[in-house]
Amino acid sequence: MIKSSFLNQEFAQIKKDFISFQWPKSPEKLYEPIEYILGIGGKRIRPVLVYASSALFGEHNQTTTNFGLAVEIFHNFTLMHDDIMDDAALRRGHKTVHEKYNVNTAILSGDMALIKAYQLLQTEDEATTSEALSIFNQMAEEVCKGQQLDIDFEASTTVSISDYIQMIEWKTSVLLGASMQLGALANKTSGRNQYHLYEFGKNIGIAFQIQDDMLDTFGNQARVGKRIGGDILQNKKTYLYLKALELLPENLAKELSSWFEGNSEDEDLKIKEVTKLYEEAMVKVYAVELMNEYKSLALSHLEAVKADNDAKKEDLKEFADFLIRREY
Amino acid sequence: MIKSSFLNQEFAQIKKDFISFQWPKSPEKLYEPIEYILGIGGKRIRPVLVYASSALFGEHNQTTTNFGLAVEIFHNFTLMHDDIMDDAALRRGHKTVHEKYNVNTAILSGDMALIKAYQLLQTEDEATTSEALSIFNQMAEEVCKGQQLDIDFEASTTVSISDYIQMIEWKTSVLLGASMQLGALANKTSGRNQYHLYEFGKNIGIAFQIQDDMLDTFGNQARVGKRIGGDILQNKKTYLYLKALELLPENLAKELSSWFEGNSEDEDLKIKEVTKLYEEAMVKVYAVELMNEYKSLALSHLEAVKADNDAKKEDLKEFADFLIRREY
Repeated sequence: MIKSSFLNQEFAQIKKDFISFQWPKSPEKLYEPIEYILGIGGKRIRPVLVYASSALFGEHNQTTTNFGLAVEIFHNFTLMHDDIMDDAALRRGHKTVHEKYNVNTAILSGDMALIKAYQLLQTEDEATTSEALSIFNQMAEEVCKGQQLDIDFEASTTVSISDYIQMIEWKTSVLLGASMQLGALANKTSGRNQYHLYEFGKNIGIAFQIQDDMLDTFGNQARVGKRIGGDILQNKKTYLYLKALELLPENLAKELSSWFEGNSEDEDLKIKEVTKLYEEAMVKVYAVELMNEYKSLALSHLEAVKADNDAKKEDLKEFADFLIRREY
Repeated sequence: MIKSSFLNQEFAQIKKDFISFQWPKSPEKLYEPIEYILGIGGKRIRPVLVYASSALFGEHNQTTTNFGLAVEIFHNFTLMHDDIMDDAALRRGHKTVHEKYNVNTAILSGDMALIKAYQLLQTEDEATTSEALSIFNQMAEEVCKGQQLDIDFEASTTVSISDYIQMIEWKTSVLLGASMQLGALANKTSGRNQYHLYEFGKNIGIAFQIQDDMLDTFGNQARVGKRIGGDILQNKKTYLYLKALELLPENLAKELSSWFEGNSEDEDLKIKEVTKLYEEAMVKVYAVELMNEYKSLALSHLEAVKADNDAKKEDLKEFADFLIRREY
């Protein structure tokens, strides 16, 4: 959980709602792994966006809670399955689900988590349920497309920066957009407000992912909770890599791309040398600039929202700022 | 596809609808595996139940088609993931998805198939969408629970026949029940009719699964399209096994259970010896009797339905009969 001076009410409410939420006790191996991954932390960014977005237009209600749970459980479904695909051993400083249990358990419990997220979209109001389903369905398909592109890019040598942005938009950002929109829907605001909040979330999400990629290479292992340099070992064509290729003189660009042609026997050496090349190209400066562009775009959408609670809008601005300054 | 003298219209319509259904072309590795598994056949039992159930109450419409596609795509999602868990190499006589592609592809494309099924529940009528979501959500959770029990039972020595029936009800039968109910919902019939059709589908489903288990042991490999004896090799506590344990004299029951204590080095020998014990106990006779009980229960629910089209009801009766007499 993030410690912050804003949205405290939302974070407290989420904590309470996750404690109250009852998972069935049987079959144990189906539900327990979901409780495990939800229990090992996570920043709860997505439900906080749902709750804060909802608070722009009225009181917190059961639908807000359910949609908040839905997006966080969906997010954890993607982690359970992505961690298998990435062969990741650690998540938030703890064993990943397939490491703690096994691959089959992570597949099936992940499926159950996805289904549980869909169950939480069901409200007493049919129109709201139908709209929520529609938002969720589009987002969920895009998240799968993003994950597929992410995998495809590892073996590709022709990824462009705009391909990369498309990939992270789908893989990460649309869920933040959908979280904002679902929160807004929970208090039945206009389609126009929903649109701007979706765009706010989506663009903050892109900035957030660029920050995430920076933390993967330049972060502090203890704070980030996973091995630093994982993206480099997996030959991930992040913005850092693509921009460095563009900026470096030909001989160094060749050196960089040759590091990404296969797996290195000496993993630490690969991480060290690639990081050095990133530093040589000063890609961090460009990454921060790009993040700020997406942040500005996000804030202009937030500005366009006609909210009932303007103080909450300020909180969301601060939260957006926090998300791209975080160190974990 | 089943060749039958009844429900021809429905089978023809399904064929047409699956050909017309357009999957996105990109990212190719996300959608192509779904088209592959849908393309290698399958009996299309679930959509035919949707279509026939819908036909009891009116014309075939777009909602009928969408719900039919949804249940078949959902079914194929479960096959993609279950085949990984079961380490199955063949499905319908072809390579399973994780064998043809790889495990990661089968996980992610399976996820996409599940999401596509949910997308197909979205109709223009909000009340119908909301009801469809509710039916689907309950069914999907139960299918996961059934799969988990199936896995749990492999390592358990205390499975009872009623545990087994609960497992197959969840793993297989509720999807047939939901197919019937969704078809009925597509033509907006009464809740009472929906209930009876759900129960018809569910109970036929139990009978169907008992038949499936019999085919796994006693079927013809070429017709069934997968290795005969797979359940035995996986130590599956099917009705055949549990009933044989009950019926056999102590020494033979012990022999049977010892075969199920681990993996045999000689797989063919294990299949041969266990099959011999099943034959010794004459479990086939009991299995057929149990199937007939569930079939009678199913038919009494069908009888209670107030349909607009009584000829279709007759077709459904014949189809039910066919399902439990099939040899593949």
